[in-house]
Amino acid sequence: MSMLHTRRTLLTVICEASIEARVLADARRLGAHGSTASDARGWGQHGERDGGWPMSGNVRIDILCEAAVADTIAGHLQEHYFRSYAMICYLSEVSVLRSEKF
Amino acid sequence: MSMLHTRRTLLTVICEASIEARVLADARRLGAHGSTASDARGWGQHGERDGGWPMSGNVRIDILCEAAVADTIAGHLQEHYFRSYAMICYLSEVSVLRSEKF
Amino acid sequence: MSMLHTRRTLLTVICEASIEARVLADARRLGAHGSTASDARGWGQHGERDGGWPMSGNVRIDILCEAAVADTIAGHLQEHYFRSYAMICYLSEVSVLRSEKF
Repeated sequence: MSMLHTRRTLLTVICEASIEARVLADARRLGAHGSTASDARGWGQHGERDGGWPMSGNVRIDILCEAAVADTIAGHLQEHYFRSYAMICYLSEVSVLRSEKF
Repeated sequence: MSMLHTRRTLLTVICEASIEARVLADARRLGAHGSTASDARGWGQHGERDGGWPMSGNVRIDILCEAAVADTIAGHLQEHYFRSYAMICYLSEVSVLRSEKF
Repeated sequence: MSMLHTRRTLLTVICEASIEARVLADARRLGAHGSTASDARGWGQHGERDGGWPMSGNVRIDILCEAAVADTIAGHLQEHYFRSYAMICYLSEVSVLRSEKF
């Protein structure tokens, strides 16, 4: 067998669970083909709305996609959510098998 | 004290919870010395068996190991699971403390 | 709008849930400005106290910070926890939006 390794970007978004569905809908509209989410809790200066810590009811969303799509989604989130919601975004480079899916 | 930093590969597998035990047993047999799993939910075109979205009852498995072991496990998963199960695999490079464990 | 991308270090700590609060307090004291935690389960040779597998009741803690802070926290954890607790630490490089938070 041959393995298909391709570089992709993993965009990780940590935000309030209340906006998970909105963020996922935006990501899908902007080119994401899939995502993985899990419950999380955090503390920190996450967004202007939340001044202190601790914070619970968070979600961690991982979106595996091409670099350009990750940039588009991250830019959209920064523009539409960062001012009003607790949200962290970071990107990392990974090697993906089955890359034809993303 | 001295810190021991060593490059290792982090193999992340996202799959249906129903096959978690099988995947972990395979990984252990193929050279993994440990793993971390957490519940997850996802949507996407994950595997031929699942045509659409959304998808729940998933698990995220992280296996920290040497690059060669990660390649062996990833190749095995690709060969034996990708056709029949919803599964995503990706690899990233990390620096590990206490590397003698992996 | 302009996106602010900055390199940061993601320090991931996997440990027993019983010491989560202690680890977070240490990280905060040593310079972390936030963290995200989620429940996890694992198996492996994690720490001298735990000889075998499987292991449950774990937590995964992700701390996004400057490289120097990550090194300080990782060194502290290695010195004070590795001998007595099941703990894994690894570091990866990520690009962060809204870097002024970390």
